[in-house]
Amino acid sequence: MAYILSVFAVRNLLVLSLALNVSLVLRVLLLHDSQDGSFNGFFFAEQKEEALATKITRLSSSVSPSSSSLTMAQGDEDRVINLDHGDPTMYESYWQKKGDETTVVIPGWQFMSYFSDATRLCWFLEPEFAKQIVRLHNVVGNAVTEKRHIVVGTGSTQLFQAALYALSPCAEAEPISVVSAAPYYSSYPLITDCLKSRLYKWAGDARSFSKNGPYIELVTSPNNPDGFARRSVVNGSEGILIHDLAYYWPQYTPISSPANYDLMLFTVSKSTGHAGMRIGWALVKDEDVARKMTKYIEINTIGVSKDSQVRAAKVLKVISDNSEGPNEGDSFFEFSYRVMAKRWKQLREAVQQSGLFSVSDFPPQLCMFLNRVFEPQPAFAWIKCEGDIEDCESFLRGKKILTRGGKHFGVSPKYVRISMLDRDKNYETFVRRLSTIRS
Amino acid sequence: MAYILSVFAVRNLLVLSLALNVSLVLRVLLLHDSQDGSFNGFFFAEQKEEALATKITRLSSSVSPSSSSLTMAQGDEDRVINLDHGDPTMYESYWQKKGDETTVVIPGWQFMSYFSDATRLCWFLEPEFAKQIVRLHNVVGNAVTEKRHIVVGTGSTQLFQAALYALSPCAEAEPISVVSAAPYYSSYPLITDCLKSRLYKWAGDARSFSKNGPYIELVTSPNNPDGFARRSVVNGSEGILIHDLAYYWPQYTPISSPANYDLMLFTVSKSTGHAGMRIGWALVKDEDVARKMTKYIEINTIGVSKDSQVRAAKVLKVISDNSEGPNEGDSFFEFSYRVMAKRWKQLREAVQQSGLFSVSDFPPQLCMFLNRVFEPQPAFAWIKCEGDIEDCESFLRGKKILTRGGKHFGVSPKYVRISMLDRDKNYETFVRRLSTIRS
Repeated sequence: MAYILSVFAVRNLLVLSLALNVSLVLRVLLLHDSQDGSFNGFFFAEQKEEALATKITRLSSSVSPSSSSLTMAQGDEDRVINLDHGDPTMYESYWQKKGDETTVVIPGWQFMSYFSDATRLCWFLEPEFAKQIVRLHNVVGNAVTEKRHIVVGTGSTQLFQAALYALSPCAEAEPISVVSAAPYYSSYPLITDCLKSRLYKWAGDARSFSKNGPYIELVTSPNNPDGFARRSVVNGSEGILIHDLAYYWPQYTPISSPANYDLMLFTVSKSTGHAGMRIGWALVKDEDVARKMTKYIEINTIGVSKDSQVRAAKVLKVISDNSEGPNEGDSFFEFSYRVMAKRWKQLREAVQQSGLFSVSDFPPQLCMFLNRVFEPQPAFAWIKCEGDIEDCESFLRGKKILTRGGKHFGVSPKYVRISMLDRDKNYETFVRRLSTIRS
Repeated sequence: MAYILSVFAVRNLLVLSLALNVSLVLRVLLLHDSQDGSFNGFFFAEQKEEALATKITRLSSSVSPSSSSLTMAQGDEDRVINLDHGDPTMYESYWQKKGDETTVVIPGWQFMSYFSDATRLCWFLEPEFAKQIVRLHNVVGNAVTEKRHIVVGTGSTQLFQAALYALSPCAEAEPISVVSAAPYYSSYPLITDCLKSRLYKWAGDARSFSKNGPYIELVTSPNNPDGFARRSVVNGSEGILIHDLAYYWPQYTPISSPANYDLMLFTVSKSTGHAGMRIGWALVKDEDVARKMTKYIEINTIGVSKDSQVRAAKVLKVISDNSEGPNEGDSFFEFSYRVMAKRWKQLREAVQQSGLFSVSDFPPQLCMFLNRVFEPQPAFAWIKCEGDIEDCESFLRGKKILTRGGKHFGVSPKYVRISMLDRDKNYETFVRRLSTIRS
């Protein structure tokens, strides 16, 4: 017995030691190689931009997040900066510093079944991931988890579709209207109308929606693209609400109280920065709705990657541990709060220096989690070209800054959305370039 | 002296045996703690079955794959055997024996970006996974990979939907018909009509389809549920074919030649047994189709879990390595071929002993990969209740064997589909019980 245990222990030690070696070697070799966030067709890619971006991939990719602000590569001011999509690569440097704390080791014979826990409503949800979701919400205080069902999804994008499927009335002759106040997340109309469903259809800006009968209103708070806190705006009696709370985390906005809605969506992409995991979760009050959402994900993808759930559980656990422990000052949210604060300060300075752009001010508020009063510092900057510039996206493309124009969000092309979550080097180059733009 | 020595020897053996037992128990507890494959609403669950299955989860779960056929637990003949879904847990024991060969180690700061390779058409496909897909097909000889685009999906289920999206004509007034020869995979109608799309609609059995104009025909070969090799059956001039080749691997059927179709779907769930990864891939000839499939997956889930792709790459690599190396006899396909051969022999004996059922014979053929002539040994048994039994699924449910009835596959309820891929213990109990069923 002791022998077998010691064999196991030795094996475990071996695995751990190998893991350490592999991670060190990988850190040296791989970080710079295959995971660059260059741009290729992410919802709004156009051929010419793609070609441009592909051409510069090699240039912009080979930069370590940590070393990025130290030096300026030759030709740095000429390269294309792609801030069109919200790839959260900014967070890599934090997790790199954390080393092996969040490393996962998965043996080949584990997590082979379709099932995670057959006794659960959401039978493909890993129990440990469910536990860490509840714990993190309790630690941060950003959402009520009591009397909620958790449904896991392949990112919150899939959960949004699961919610549409679950909330659409079956017996209606015509599709239920889906609305959101402009500027709304540019993917909502695309996703909603992608398959031309007879269950639901995109009906545009919630502020101009006045049809009688049932409707679904999407409330994104803080909002993507403009960062403002939101409530529902349609004044109908038969509205069903979906709350997309992807950005309701303390690095982006003060946490004033735990969100307490019927259907709330979250994702690791924007909370911890692990977009490549494709993991999101929904907190759902109504059991039938949770059951139907689970059914959609069963039909759409027969569940959600176990490997990514296991990894996400580990990351969430480390965040909670560090937020509560003695290393609180080095916690994930402290780090990411500081980076966002610095970046917003730089952005406002650049906007002022240029004189061609404007950006909103946000009212400061007390964050119950960080115990600090601050202004929201959103994951996207929502910038307006002032003066004669009618198409801000095209104007900035001329300066080799790729952004997403206002028309995709249901508003004027004088606006653009700019990701604030790119690696240091790209962000630094961007603000430097922005500050020098004159008409 | 001799006496004392022999007492010592027995004692030692006992200690050793106890130690072995304890270690097996530990292994069992560790393995089955969180990943049991009991049944809960997997496409055709009904409430009563669910309750039944949930009740027996604890009983049937705590069994090691390796020790399962040695003993029979008390009450073993009373428990519900759920062979409704094709959960490939049979393969766990092989990967367990392989130990750390397929273990993956993923540091917390890796694979964070949405992007895997921005220069690729399928920008969320991990390059190493793409490489191992091509290599495995070349090793096994079951599919042509030259001049094909690879699209990765969250299981082949998502890729099937991506294919429907990509192949549906945009400008048509009415949805394109989607057909498959009965008995067809029970999920096809459900998936196709899930969102009541205006792009495509399920049109049933391909053999009775005679509408003019374009249509999509699904060809599953070997077929789920009945295991036969298939070709397209509709005689129209405007047909577009999707080949679902999930079971075209040497443990299930002789590999006669590399499949060479326009759009071919594969999945790790049925090839390597890693259903929990939710990873599939498509080999696509036409660039535009591959591009549209990629677009669908972008809109549906913004790509596919990187963690599972990395893990799948490792598993495929080990299979290829072992198939080519000196340990060929212990290769994955040799192991799984032997298990399937044994199970089909047991099944045919049980069917014969009972006298109440029938099962098809398959013509033997030469497998170019295993270099051996054998009869197909499908992943599902397609069994017919003979005599007066009209509803075979209900009849077997009365014997506490959960199966999927013929009506779900578009044919008579006299047929049922039975998974052949469950853990040893469940399979052994099933064939023993089947053999004793009398009218």
